[in-house]
Order: sequence, then C-alpha cells, then structure tokens
Amino acid sequence: MHPLFERALRGEKTERPPVWLMRQAGRYLPRYRELRSSYTFREAISTPDVATEISLLPYERFGVDGVIMYSDILTILDPLGIEYRIESGVGPVIDQPINNHDDLPDGFEAMDTAVGYVGELLERLSETLGDDATTIGFAGGPFTVASYLVAGEPTKSHIPLRRLRVEAPTLWEDLLGVLTDATVAYVTYQEAHGAEVIQLFDTYVGHLTPDAYREWILPLHQQVLDAVEVPTIIFARGMNGHLEDLAATGADMVSIDWMIDIDRARDELGPAVPVQGNLDPVELLGPRDRIIEATNDVIERAGPRGHILNLGHGVERSTPPEHVATFVETAKAFTHDTD
Amino acid sequence: MHPLFERALRGEKTERPPVWLMRQAGRYLPRYRELRSSYTFREAISTPDVATEISLLPYERFGVDGVIMYSDILTILDPLGIEYRIESGVGPVIDQPINNHDDLPDGFEAMDTAVGYVGELLERLSETLGDDATTIGFAGGPFTVASYLVAGEPTKSHIPLRRLRVEAPTLWEDLLGVLTDATVAYVTYQEAHGAEVIQLFDTYVGHLTPDAYREWILPLHQQVLDAVEVPTIIFARGMNGHLEDLAATGADMVSIDWMIDIDRARDELGPAVPVQGNLDPVELLGPRDRIIEATNDVIERAGPRGHILNLGHGVERSTPPEHVATFVETAKAFTHDTD
Repeated sequence: MHPLFERALRGEKTERPPVWLMRQAGRYLPRYRELRSSYTFREAISTPDVATEISLLPYERFGVDGVIMYSDILTILDPLGIEYRIESGVGPVIDQPINNHDDLPDGFEAMDTAVGYVGELLERLSETLGDDATTIGFAGGPFTVASYLVAGEPTKSHIPLRRLRVEAPTLWEDLLGVLTDATVAYVTYQEAHGAEVIQLFDTYVGHLTPDAYREWILPLHQQVLDAVEVPTIIFARGMNGHLEDLAATGADMVSIDWMIDIDRARDELGPAVPVQGNLDPVELLGPRDRIIEATNDVIERAGPRGHILNLGHGVERSTPPEHVATFVETAKAFTHDTD
Repeated sequence: MHPLFERALRGEKTERPPVWLMRQAGRYLPRYRELRSSYTFREAISTPDVATEISLLPYERFGVDGVIMYSDILTILDPLGIEYRIESGVGPVIDQPINNHDDLPDGFEAMDTAVGYVGELLERLSETLGDDATTIGFAGGPFTVASYLVAGEPTKSHIPLRRLRVEAPTLWEDLLGVLTDATVAYVTYQEAHGAEVIQLFDTYVGHLTPDAYREWILPLHQQVLDAVEVPTIIFARGMNGHLEDLAATGADMVSIDWMIDIDRARDELGPAVPVQGNLDPVELLGPRDRIIEATNDVIERAGPRGHILNLGHGVERSTPPEHVATFVETAKAFTHDTD
C-alpha cells in the first residue's frame, strides 16, 4: 500500500493527494490499443500476462499512486455460470436475460476455479508494486450488474431492472441476493490474493429513488463492504440528492461524481468521511493550463484531509495521454498549506 | 388558468395539489397509438387537428389540471432551418451535425411562418380549456437541444457537446447563443398564442459540473425565462448537487426529478420556492395500492404550499392507462390538513 493512500483512506492529512484515475488502463493509451488488436477484451482480462501489462501501463507511464486491476464488472458472471459477450458498438450482451425465477443461477462456482485469472493478476500486481503504489481490486455493485442481466444489454435509464422492483419484487430481491452472495465471495477472494483496497462500482444505482436505495440496496452494499478487512471505496453516480447514504454503506471512502462541487459533497458527508474524486473527465480534453487550474481547484476544494484525487468518472477514450500526465503531475506537485 | 395551478405557482397553499404528468399524451394511450398509425410523429405535432386531439386525451380521460401542448423540444429547429428526422429505435437524427462555425444557423425565421402550427395548437387548447385546466407551452433548453445538434443523435452522456465546451469554447458559446435567441422568440410566441405557463426542459444539463452550469447555462436560462410574463417552470435532471442554481434561473417553479426526496429538495431550495414533482415514473408500473401510497407520500412530503404534483420524469410507454388514472384520482382525493 502506498503510504499516502493509506493515510488518505484513514482520513488523515496528506501533503498532497494520492492520485489515480478510473479507467486509467484503457483505449486512450496507444500500447493498450496495440495489445487489443491481438486479444479480445475478454481474452485480455483473463490472460494474466496481458492483464498485468495493461494494468501497469498508467503506473509506468504516469506514476499513478494506485493501480486498479484491468478487469470488468461482469467477470462475476463467470462463477455464476451466466454467458455474455461483448458486442462492438453495443457493449455487453446477455443472450438469455433473466426474466423469471428459473433463469436465476443456483449458487456460484469457487472463485479460484472460475476467476483464478483475477487472483493471479492481483498477486502479480501486488508483488510488482510493493508500497510504490496501491493494488486496487474491484467489483460491480449488484444493481449495476443486475441491470445488464435483466435488460440483456446496456440501457439508458435501467428501466427493465427498475420495473422489476415494482412488478416482480421477489425476483428482484432474489436476483440481487444471489449477486450479492457471489460478490461477497469475489471481494474476499481478491483480498486473499493481494488487493489492498476494494472499490465497489455500483455506477447506475443512483437511478433509484433514495427510499428504494435505502430499502433494497444499502443493506447489500453493507454486506459486500463488510466482507473484507482491507479499506473500501464506494462509487455510484447520481447520488447527490442523498450522498450520506453512501457513507452509511460502511465504505471507508466515498467516490464523488463530477456533478457536485467536492467541497459541498464533503459538507454533506461531514468532515470525517474521506472522499475520492472528482474532476470532470471532459476537462482532460481541454488545454494544458485549464487542466492544471481545474485539477488544483479540485485539490483545494477537497482540502488536505482524507482525499484521493481521481476523476468523477472514467477517462474518456479520446483523452490525449499527455493530458493524463498533466493531471498526475499537478497532483504530485501540489503541497497543501501547513497550519 | 386552473385556479389551483395559479395558486401553487405563486407558492400559496392549496387544499390538494394540482396534477398533470410529463409526457402524459403519449404511447401508453391506445388512442394515441391509433392516431400515430396514420401520422408520423412530425406530421402529428405539426397538424393542429391531430395535435389538439392528442394534447387533450389525458384531460378527457383522466381530468388532469394541466394540459401540455403535444409537441417536441426539437420544433425549434424548424425556424432555425436545421433538418432532422426521427429514426425508429434511435430517436432524432441530424444528418449534418454542427462541427464548426460554418454549420451555425445565421438567425431564425419568424415563428408564425416556421411554427405557426404551435400557435394554432395553443390557441385551440386555451379556448377549449378556459379555466378548467392550464394550457402549458414548453421549449427545450439550449444545452439539451445543442446535445442533439452536435452529436447528430441521442447520446448517453452528452460527451460530444461537453467536449465542445473545452475544445472549442467559442463555437460552444455561439451555438448556445443562437439557440437561446431563437428560444426567447419561441416562448414569447407561445405566450402570445395562449400558453398560460411555459416549462423549460433542459433535461440533460445536469451532466455539466456546477461551475460550468453557472458560467455558461444559467445566464441563458435566465434570458429565456425572463422573456415571458406568464409563470415559468424549469426542469433539469441530475441537478441535485446544486438544486439552488435552478431557483437562480428566475423560474417561478422548479420541477424536481425522482432521485431526491421532495422534502429534502424543498429544504435545499428554501420554503419560498414552489416545486413540481416527483413520483418515480416506474412506480406507475406497480400495483394500485402501491401507487396510491407512493403518490400520497409525495404529496405529504411536498407539503401544502406551492406544489404541483407530477412525475420526476416522463410517463413510461408501458404504463397501464388505469394506473395514470389512479395517480390523478389520488391527487384529487387528497386534502391537506388545515391548521
């Protein structure tokens, strides 16, 4: 674990924020595109040699303080025995979406059998990185994974899953339950194989009302985050009307999207809750001086205590790599005033 | 103007909330689908006989207190001379999206020439309705309309337009400027032809950071809303991290999405700001007793002063019409405690 990371996750003061970027190992990197011309996405994530090289690209190129494993939120479908494929221009497609109880998986395979490639990847990363950077594992949250399973493909407003809640509440509950059980086993497995931090991505869950979130999803998030000893981060977009619910999950840190000022988010969460974020990824498409200004602004607004600098969402694929370098360098050059 | 509507818009106490639904004249209505088998969408909105019948369907069937003209946020492209078409399964498509200054329209045609059908529709509606229901006109907000113009089609996160702001700020500003000028003329025209309330739908603008909203869009919203004497309502989704910015537009009422509790939204806006909303449209897909309970809950949380009951977004097309009836009846049967 990188020492700045550890301190920020504990809510302590750091001279400068530790920094990494969501989707930092992706299409905007030429070497990534080169590797992906030889391997499909699913081959790349399930081949430890390739996944290790990809995961480390942003560490080697930019010196980020955190390295997230190169993987996918849908890898959990492997132990669950649910088939899916990635269709170009569409995204993940599940040919047999879940429509009734018979479609539900009855349990899940052991993680080292079904997703042994994830354990191997994490072991390699943590061995390579030591304390020079933090090895970050992750899982998709139950709402977000279920949205694909019920719709069979990406959707704009997650209506198929949202309507399941009111039209077939037992199926909704059972589906989320089996996903949560598998995710608990998955994050425990990641911890055992070298993950020093686990980030839970329930990206789409903000599409629920606050009441529905609290009734149905909050207990599941608590269950997943409670399953590991290592520090945890929760990310969900569009929760700015009830941000304190994310703190109630028990995550050690709340990752903030770009649609709220980070100082305001801290006010709402209270000063004791560490936060990650939240530069608008689109800012990295602008000129260098704007990137420096906007990055410094986020760091200053977030303040010196318990802050990991990140974007408010993943890196856009058209981002020039040198702009990511500027973002990381700006964080590393920053020094908080000492009082 | 329906008297309850008028009082709610002024922030006064009403015995029960006036009620209507965004996208209330749509595909979930059998008669609508029947009419649309004879007319394309653009034929239907531009033929006053047809558009009048469609606009009035939910009034006749459910007795809503507000009737929004059946139209489209992209009708403003007619006076601007920008071609578009509706592609089945995709949505609006603009074959020549705006990529540089040469693509910008130089001004706009007179409204009575270009969209005379809108004026005629509003005249018919206000004559038919009198004070039995409020005649509601509307326009799309500049960000939302520009998102289609720049991307050429619907997008998930409005990246093409958002990147224009950082990559080509002059084009961004000029495009929003010409859209705003046309929209000012458009809402003024609607007011002159019978609109008793104007709702501005800048549905997607929540994808900007709060800073970017305040710098670029807030002044444009102020300009549009300031152009008319009649009461105005503003709707934008995903603004819950900085809801007070919507009150700063000068709108008489802020329409709240379903992703925040309406009592919390009122707390943030302050008690003097009238609100509209905010039942999750998905609730109308559930059983009758749940709809009644959830609707009463919204009414109670919103309180007796300055509240128009609505959904937090448009009616889902798979909604059973009798569920919409339940929603409207629940509002009409409600009586706020008198103290």
